[in-house]
Amino acid sequence: MRMSAILSISLALLGKLALAKQLEIGSINPNLIEAQYAVRGAILDKAEEFQKQIEANPQGHGLPFDSIVPCNIGNPQVLGQKPLSFNREVLSLVMNRDLLEKAEASPGGTLGGAFKADAVRRARMYLTRNPEGLGAYSNSQGWAVVREEVAEFIAQRDGHPSDPEQIFLTDGASAGVRMFYQTMLRPGQPDGMLVPIPQYPLYSALTTLFGGHLVGYYLDESASWEARVGELERALKEARAKGTNVRGLVVINPGNPTGQCLDLKAQQEIAAFAVRENLVLFADEVYQENIIAEGKKFNSFKKVALDMGSAAAKLELISFHTASKGFMGECGIRGGYFELHNIDPEAKAMLYKLASITLCSNTPGQLSIGLMVNPPKKGDESHAAYVGERDGILESLKRRAFKLSAALNKLEGISVNPPEGSMYLFPQVKLPKAAVQAANKSGMAADGFYCMELLKATGIVTVPGSGFKQVDGTWHFRTTFLPAEDKIDTVISRMTVFNDNFMRKFKSSEL
Amino acid sequence: MRMSAILSISLALLGKLALAKQLEIGSINPNLIEAQYAVRGAILDKAEEFQKQIEANPQGHGLPFDSIVPCNIGNPQVLGQKPLSFNREVLSLVMNRDLLEKAEASPGGTLGGAFKADAVRRARMYLTRNPEGLGAYSNSQGWAVVREEVAEFIAQRDGHPSDPEQIFLTDGASAGVRMFYQTMLRPGQPDGMLVPIPQYPLYSALTTLFGGHLVGYYLDESASWEARVGELERALKEARAKGTNVRGLVVINPGNPTGQCLDLKAQQEIAAFAVRENLVLFADEVYQENIIAEGKKFNSFKKVALDMGSAAAKLELISFHTASKGFMGECGIRGGYFELHNIDPEAKAMLYKLASITLCSNTPGQLSIGLMVNPPKKGDESHAAYVGERDGILESLKRRAFKLSAALNKLEGISVNPPEGSMYLFPQVKLPKAAVQAANKSGMAADGFYCMELLKATGIVTVPGSGFKQVDGTWHFRTTFLPAEDKIDTVISRMTVFNDNFMRKFKSSEL
Repeated sequence: MRMSAILSISLALLGKLALAKQLEIGSINPNLIEAQYAVRGAILDKAEEFQKQIEANPQGHGLPFDSIVPCNIGNPQVLGQKPLSFNREVLSLVMNRDLLEKAEASPGGTLGGAFKADAVRRARMYLTRNPEGLGAYSNSQGWAVVREEVAEFIAQRDGHPSDPEQIFLTDGASAGVRMFYQTMLRPGQPDGMLVPIPQYPLYSALTTLFGGHLVGYYLDESASWEARVGELERALKEARAKGTNVRGLVVINPGNPTGQCLDLKAQQEIAAFAVRENLVLFADEVYQENIIAEGKKFNSFKKVALDMGSAAAKLELISFHTASKGFMGECGIRGGYFELHNIDPEAKAMLYKLASITLCSNTPGQLSIGLMVNPPKKGDESHAAYVGERDGILESLKRRAFKLSAALNKLEGISVNPPEGSMYLFPQVKLPKAAVQAANKSGMAADGFYCMELLKATGIVTVPGSGFKQVDGTWHFRTTFLPAEDKIDTVISRMTVFNDNFMRKFKSSEL
Repeated sequence: MRMSAILSISLALLGKLALAKQLEIGSINPNLIEAQYAVRGAILDKAEEFQKQIEANPQGHGLPFDSIVPCNIGNPQVLGQKPLSFNREVLSLVMNRDLLEKAEASPGGTLGGAFKADAVRRARMYLTRNPEGLGAYSNSQGWAVVREEVAEFIAQRDGHPSDPEQIFLTDGASAGVRMFYQTMLRPGQPDGMLVPIPQYPLYSALTTLFGGHLVGYYLDESASWEARVGELERALKEARAKGTNVRGLVVINPGNPTGQCLDLKAQQEIAAFAVRENLVLFADEVYQENIIAEGKKFNSFKKVALDMGSAAAKLELISFHTASKGFMGECGIRGGYFELHNIDPEAKAMLYKLASITLCSNTPGQLSIGLMVNPPKKGDESHAAYVGERDGILESLKRRAFKLSAALNKLEGISVNPPEGSMYLFPQVKLPKAAVQAANKSGMAADGFYCMELLKATGIVTVPGSGFKQVDGTWHFRTTFLPAEDKIDTVISRMTVFNDNFMRKFKSSEL
């Protein structure tokens, strides 16, 4: 090596030392570095790059598509779904008290038809109960009036009473799940959570972030992604044998990304298992309104447990819900709640303290939960329009789910279970060996490679199955069926052309 | 011991074992158990109890007061401060797109005067930039349009450029601070943060929650709570000698709870200290609009550092701001931002990943930040009204600050520094020995006892100085000066009567 080269390396090293930062990758919480959240990753980054490319030069961007279609995330309003009129009327009136007063003072009380009368009444009700309005910090559990509405909704849904004091309003359901992970996973302890595989990456990300162990139990793809107690027992036993202290069991029903809607019997067995094994049951029930298959019915785990009788007295249960899914799809407003069932009061006090450190969840989100659980009733001025909007969205979602799943099942190498619930399909892709090799070469998971090629060819954004975890050697991707009805055919034809080309290319290279 | 007693004890134990819960105080993250957040604690619990007592029986509640006055927290709208009309007009229009379209289609474009024309234009601008509206998840850093508005605001304020890509929108400033604590405090490592004493309890709570070390530096009460570099050096040296790896330095300016507004020279010395000692500077600048004292001026640490020249090139700086304070006081909507300056891109990527795990901050909060940093300009239809509302609030806050501090300084045993900024006074109370003994007897900190007695006698809620930490053997409490102008006299007279009685009672018992 020549002296000048040595000198220049030394200078570079010196420069690096002199510029060494306090906050850099080597000095960051390693749990954060390790955590993965696949719904937003390399593929979304590439999609955002394409999006900018298109915006910068709409005519000459040089891409083989003119728009990015984000099927990676359950974000309906980005794909054209409209918010419910009643909800937004009430939100805008509570947000703007002067407007509410003008509406009330106007002839007919609707500001010339700008509002329905029941929206005006509902807004007034919220401001009567909370004269301070949306601009004040609320109680750290959330507005009492909304928690009462939630309790009434749960009681009606389940036929069992619900207590507003056991309900916490949160910034979306994710924030609530995070609170529990932070509460239950003890630094330096081998605490673990049973989580379905495939799972929603929130659970794996939070497990890593708070230093816990992810204990996966496989859903049975050959039987509509059913959760079987035998498999739960296997996973638990193996984890315990390794010294993991399994504390909780996550069940996502309807499933994400897998879309199954659990049968009552399976739920009963799971509840009994959780009681028997002394596990806290986390019921992620955010897709409870998104039931797609004929004959399928959502049962909350609380109802299932309480209907079982004495067992329920012992089940420690937390159930999560959100304003982001269902037919509202109010993702951006960040409204969620969880209900505690049979949770120790001291543990509840700790959750309250944790909530209080960041003061309260956002009040428009809290309000959106009230509107979700307490829709217009028969006879209310908004009722007919509300039902029309709701049913329109739900029926259309069903049509799109069946259309997309039928089309996917026709593609070479692809098979997908019939959709039962949620907003997703999770098709399996049998990838040609050459494709797997090409993926390996480029340092990607094989399904990541498939999804990246799909994006590059079509602008359609999906999430590789590896981000959700899956049985080794199988490959999947998650796609929403949320593109608007007039767009879904285009999505299907683009996917079809891509998959045909992809399979042809990599199969021929095997010859 | 008789057999029956033994039997009943055994049965009780057995019952306890049989009912042992998975989630209970003994199995919760000990960091959470240990964390304290004094702004919401025993005194607020008691206040809420009184509030319920009054509501349940407004005529015969039996308390010596008819209302609770929450001076414990900077929550202006709960005490009657009105939100800014322009901001709420825009928020309601963006929330309700049909309403915006009706306004635009109406003669004059204001829906019969329900909106100012510039509010309608601004709402349309936001929806043009974000056609998906408030109901979609945003980019995990927040709406680009708002980040551009923030960057423009910072550039105008500081005379130095600001990059929207270095800005994150968060659910209030607290959520941003939490992100950094989770990023920087590594489990099992002796990482620490330099934090002013007295401090805002968010910092101590997050330090404990993420397993770090709080390294306190004392503010000088005898010199308007100034932060002195000599004291910073002492604290740093002592902490390092004990093996603590001090990573960051928190400066709250204007101060909370102490209300000082730092002088330029002090800020320059602090910035140079942070560079010299390789510490990330966390500039909590949420009270930057709340300058009270004549002749005092807020300087952002970014401006200070960049004006200093080459030193700034090395300063790792994060500055926090919020929609909850200033003259907006939009606490409930949970809008905040932080700006990165000279932060390693890989560290930024980790912050982005952390934000993405819970998807995005709430969009109405994001919007409220845009409205905060980009108010109506001269010539805009809302400008005059906006200025009137803004100045009315700020002038009134000044009057109330001076009135309350003057009154407190007249009380026996109480002295308070002249208010310079923020929303708080932090008076020192010299407590009679007998009062300290009475406090000890009831297991409370002496200032906690004083605040509890104040609450019981007057309904006024304050926070004991011990919740913020303070020099040993001194006692303080934090009070806002936020009660409305027609209420502040009542607050003062209630406090005066209480303090006179309290001091008389406990001094006489010393005789």
